[in-house]
Amino acid sequence: MNELTIELSAEDGKCLYEQIYEYIRKEIREGKLLQDEKLPSTRALASFLQVSRSTVELAYEQLLSEGYIEAIPYKGYFVCRMEELYHIEARAEEEEREKKRQDEKYEIDFSPNGIEMEYFPYGAWKRISKNTLIDDRKEMFALGSPQGDFELRSTIAKYLHGSRGVNCFPEQIIVGAGNDFLLMLLEKILGRHVKIGMEAKTYKRAYRIFNSFAYEIHPIRQDGAGIVVEELEKSGVSAVYVMPSHQFPTGNVMPIGRRTELLKWAYEKEERYIIEDDYDSEFRYKGKPIPSLQASDKMEKVIYIGTFSKAIAPAIRISFMVLPKRLLKYYKENLSFYSSTVSRIDQMILNEFIKDGYFERYLNKMRKVYKSKHDLLVGECRKMENLFELSGENAGLHVLLRSRKGKTEKELIESAAGCGIKVYGLSDGYITEEKEETNTVLLGYGGLSEEEIKRGMEQLKKAWSE
Amino acid sequence: MNELTIELSAEDGKCLYEQIYEYIRKEIREGKLLQDEKLPSTRALASFLQVSRSTVELAYEQLLSEGYIEAIPYKGYFVCRMEELYHIEARAEEEEREKKRQDEKYEIDFSPNGIEMEYFPYGAWKRISKNTLIDDRKEMFALGSPQGDFELRSTIAKYLHGSRGVNCFPEQIIVGAGNDFLLMLLEKILGRHVKIGMEAKTYKRAYRIFNSFAYEIHPIRQDGAGIVVEELEKSGVSAVYVMPSHQFPTGNVMPIGRRTELLKWAYEKEERYIIEDDYDSEFRYKGKPIPSLQASDKMEKVIYIGTFSKAIAPAIRISFMVLPKRLLKYYKENLSFYSSTVSRIDQMILNEFIKDGYFERYLNKMRKVYKSKHDLLVGECRKMENLFELSGENAGLHVLLRSRKGKTEKELIESAAGCGIKVYGLSDGYITEEKEETNTVLLGYGGLSEEEIKRGMEQLKKAWSE
Repeated sequence: MNELTIELSAEDGKCLYEQIYEYIRKEIREGKLLQDEKLPSTRALASFLQVSRSTVELAYEQLLSEGYIEAIPYKGYFVCRMEELYHIEARAEEEEREKKRQDEKYEIDFSPNGIEMEYFPYGAWKRISKNTLIDDRKEMFALGSPQGDFELRSTIAKYLHGSRGVNCFPEQIIVGAGNDFLLMLLEKILGRHVKIGMEAKTYKRAYRIFNSFAYEIHPIRQDGAGIVVEELEKSGVSAVYVMPSHQFPTGNVMPIGRRTELLKWAYEKEERYIIEDDYDSEFRYKGKPIPSLQASDKMEKVIYIGTFSKAIAPAIRISFMVLPKRLLKYYKENLSFYSSTVSRIDQMILNEFIKDGYFERYLNKMRKVYKSKHDLLVGECRKMENLFELSGENAGLHVLLRSRKGKTEKELIESAAGCGIKVYGLSDGYITEEKEETNTVLLGYGGLSEEEIKRGMEQLKKAWSE
Repeated sequence: MNELTIELSAEDGKCLYEQIYEYIRKEIREGKLLQDEKLPSTRALASFLQVSRSTVELAYEQLLSEGYIEAIPYKGYFVCRMEELYHIEARAEEEEREKKRQDEKYEIDFSPNGIEMEYFPYGAWKRISKNTLIDDRKEMFALGSPQGDFELRSTIAKYLHGSRGVNCFPEQIIVGAGNDFLLMLLEKILGRHVKIGMEAKTYKRAYRIFNSFAYEIHPIRQDGAGIVVEELEKSGVSAVYVMPSHQFPTGNVMPIGRRTELLKWAYEKEERYIIEDDYDSEFRYKGKPIPSLQASDKMEKVIYIGTFSKAIAPAIRISFMVLPKRLLKYYKENLSFYSSTVSRIDQMILNEFIKDGYFERYLNKMRKVYKSKHDLLVGECRKMENLFELSGENAGLHVLLRSRKGKTEKELIESAAGCGIKVYGLSDGYITEEKEETNTVLLGYGGLSEEEIKRGMEQLKKAWSE
């Protein structure tokens, strides 16, 4: 082969070599140029395409460096063996395309994971970043404490005490690049073969993570107050994962009685621990803020995990874990050789952002923004009171609707999809083998504008009233 | 008690409330104020110290929020129960003080972990950070791909191909917050109960990490060419951890023959894999650069791990792992729900830093800087040729000296310490139960100035000539 019919365009905004490179790359990826196939020589292709030889050489170099083609001396350029990768990629791409096609069907997506980034004080964040970098503190390029900078940990301890009633010393805090990493570290602290209890409907991501450990996961029955402690007791687990301030997906808040029962369970045996994931406790719209479970813990039994990904921005990969003192001791003696996963510059920026009051102001702003969206959504939901029972509406960024007419989750999702609206099934959160058929859907509103919420709810009313 | 004799100073640079807060905090931490002890009332202390009552209140608030004291209504302020934490902290502090005392004895520390940060292009890094933040790309605050941004992975793939001969697609790269995290992720990919071979003298940090997994570690005998493959075969392990380009601590480079043997070992069974840690391959002073082992791998058997912490700065928590396609497939299907641990802003800054050529220029600069230090050190070592055999001198940031006169490692370290110089024992790297008595010490020079190297070597000559 010495001809590749590439349509080169001067107006494409891309230089010629890039266009050649991308064309060949696409041909290889799509399997149109096959393994071991010979490419035209640079001279031949250049003359064929009427471009300079160095343009073709540049394109080939790029393909070489990325491993798409190989050069065999005195023979020429050949397409590399890459079936396997091709399969992986092709499938991944196919899935992505499929997802996109699916998503395009939807005009409005009531995703419970959506968050609003419109009001983030980008300006302040940038200014602090700039100032942090201007200070000629070269130590910020040196490796810091494995637990995170002491200043940031002090700031977090203070913030947690003030806003969530968490009692801890900065020494007990480990700062890490996201909850997933902190759970991986916790695996090393708690040991490899832990029996862990989780509510039967829970946060799927945490379930997947525990599942990737050697943990034995026991789904525990839950009622309106949260995990049923007698069942927990019976299951024989030594650790339990809960979200007392706002359970996902049910939206329930664990009342004080159940909290006391749960703590009592943990107090009874030395090896028992409660993992409290306080993922979106910042947002509560009714009544007084509810303190964390950790705040009521008198015997160092609660491992508290929180994140700035939800309240600041998902790309800010900073989470934190508060360890009870016995676990802290184990960590310090056995695991503190694990280096910190958060860059010191980021730690300093976040520290300033909180200390200078931006974080609090931003949270206050967002509480108002989310409350306004929440009130709008809840108001619209109430108009369908004859059809649906509303719950989980006092906190967080989603509500639940249960059909009073016996419509199944599947039916509700499908009729919504028919009107271009995406809603989510409660059963997505099930970790039991058999998924109960539910009559409940989740509506998240964090990432939608008020206009979208209004429009979406109108469509849903139409879809569900028939 | 209602008196606390706090010496307040107006010149201390700290405001009064901070001085009060720090004094009381110290008293509590050092056990001078005991659990349940009552603090003076704010009124009493204010009058005693001749400061305003609000100053004392501010100090107490801080102590309250950090959990050092508690307020009991109608009774006053009391010191919290904190024996346990006190013990942990007290010991950690004691250890730190001890280490400091030890280090203060040393005028010059030939640490093999030291690196030079004097020439880092802080200006360029700051400029790129600023520009990255100025672009109003809000998506950089959204959560990115679990493997890292595709742009950065493409840049890394290209860099690795050009400088290390690594053959990979950007799709095979996982970017993570440090090697430790990547090894944790690799644990999930390879499985929980892997038998892993490591050279008997190896990188202790990697050993500690594997040890914190459920991995069965087999120390394998090594000779001048590296790991002995027959012994590896006999040990029955399925994975092996090596540093072919520059073994730590021996400084050996694995010759092509041994590389072929090692690859052949891996080719023989499907489950066998080689973990190549290419930790400081950027620095080589003699001969041509040695390509990575991954470059010679024809059967997707090498898991390649590299980091920017050594070549850029330890605080830049960005490492990367290149997965063979079979493992990549497993990762994509089972583990890609683990979120990325590196913030997108940091990924974008690093990407620009490499793409704009700063990284290459900085590496070139550092090669010169380190070569100059290296040549100086090696020259000084050669002056003691009658006493010591030099090795490991063509790459990396440390050399080894073996006593020809039968002096033990311990004797060498001690006599050096007598002159205020810290050198390191080869046996620190032993992972076998019984540490062989060696006659070899390690001298790192990355973090020392030329002047310090000269002065240090003069002292060592004195210490070791007697």
